[in-house]
Amino acid sequence: MKIQIYYEDTDAGGIVYHPNYLHFCDRARSDYFFQKDMLPLIDGAHFVVRKINCDFISSAKFGDMIEVTTKITKFKGSCFELLHEIYRKKELLFTANVLLVLVGNGKVKRLTKDIQDFLNSFFY
Amino acid sequence: MKIQIYYEDTDAGGIVYHPNYLHFCDRARSDYFFQKDMLPLIDGAHFVVRKINCDFISSAKFGDMIEVTTKITKFKGSCFELLHEIYRKKELLFTANVLLVLVGNGKVKRLTKDIQDFLNSFFY
Amino acid sequence: MKIQIYYEDTDAGGIVYHPNYLHFCDRARSDYFFQKDMLPLIDGAHFVVRKINCDFISSAKFGDMIEVTTKITKFKGSCFELLHEIYRKKELLFTANVLLVLVGNGKVKRLTKDIQDFLNSFFY
Amino acid sequence: MKIQIYYEDTDAGGIVYHPNYLHFCDRARSDYFFQKDMLPLIDGAHFVVRKINCDFISSAKFGDMIEVTTKITKFKGSCFELLHEIYRKKELLFTANVLLVLVGNGKVKRLTKDIQDFLNSFFY
Repeated sequence: MKIQIYYEDTDAGGIVYHPNYLHFCDRARSDYFFQKDMLPLIDGAHFVVRKINCDFISSAKFGDMIEVTTKITKFKGSCFELLHEIYRKKELLFTANVLLVLVGNGKVKRLTKDIQDFLNSFFY
Repeated sequence: MKIQIYYEDTDAGGIVYHPNYLHFCDRARSDYFFQKDMLPLIDGAHFVVRKINCDFISSAKFGDMIEVTTKITKFKGSCFELLHEIYRKKELLFTANVLLVLVGNGKVKRLTKDIQDFLNSFFY
Repeated sequence: MKIQIYYEDTDAGGIVYHPNYLHFCDRARSDYFFQKDMLPLIDGAHFVVRKINCDFISSAKFGDMIEVTTKITKFKGSCFELLHEIYRKKELLFTANVLLVLVGNGKVKRLTKDIQDFLNSFFY
Repeated sequence: MKIQIYYEDTDAGGIVYHPNYLHFCDRARSDYFFQKDMLPLIDGAHFVVRKINCDFISSAKFGDMIEVTTKITKFKGSCFELLHEIYRKKELLFTANVLLVLVGNGKVKRLTKDIQDFLNSFFY
């Protein structure tokens, strides 16, 4: 998923405001679904972020074109983990390990074999 | 209402990103209610913005403390108009005329005399 | 210019947070340049917004795909005016008349015939 | 540092958009300086975020008043670590361990004893 950096993404330091890299990861998660004309829902449950560990390696700036990759790395009980990497051409700018759950009707959803297969096929 | 300018409010131009002045006006509208331990609702109806005319006169920058003033200027059918002014000390940075309606249960609310009095007493 | 609506664009009302339509217009202005591998600069001068008059006609929501159009409508001294319209399919959601100047080295740039021609050819 | 939650902070899920908790931590870091009429600079060097590990425990919503606490927890070479906690009354909503460096003239600043003492006295 390619993302263009606009003024709104930057701050007075002249570079992307650091929490905005998490916006880009969030866009990437949604985009897998939008590209298949779906909303980012699985059996009516939506993604909820539980933990994020992220590294700010280098900075994107106004006018840059960046790319976000997304891979599923782990299932652990009702949680699953995604690894997002953000690149500008070949240069790695940012990584985030994001632990997520699926929440429907206010309850955390069990990650059945079917859902695991779906997620595995989705975030390749 | 005083507002401190943080990194998140600025862009790579080194000044406040221009749509963010509308955030500050929106905060000001909500704050009148929060200060009285209310949510910004009138008889269960919330504010919806219909039109904005705004002038960008000068710029706030990181670290500035600005102030937003809010005055009701007009009733016109089911609409009312607020004038927001944003100052840094004595210097006027921004003005916005914002035309609003109240929407409850998906319908525009009639501005009865009671509601007009309430709004007049509120945004003084 | 097509824009996908993500969670970050919405607010607790379930629809796009109203100042974000101005982000979309700003992205559109920059995108004309990015698509030609340029930065949004004219002879080293950048765009500065002086006035905006905008109408909020209907709302975009999470998952919508919208489209921003941009047309130059007027030259007036050192200012020029753009009309942005935002559509979801055929439905008009938002319009904005944006008065801009070009600022380089801290000074407003005179809009010579060459610059007018350039702008006219650009925002068609 | 107390922070009021406005519409701009929320998303269509009805709660604070998750990256915005990092905005609140960033505001808190700046606010220690603003309250002493300083900019968040140390010997001309500014804070740069290197890593963040954060836990999303519970959610703030429109109208909530939250509080951000900030403590210095570690020095490690040229880095230092802050622990931010965000509360709504007594309820812990969010924690973040943020690893930072000081950057001046494009270079990472050595954390001398004086700077360590300053930081220790600052983020108590």
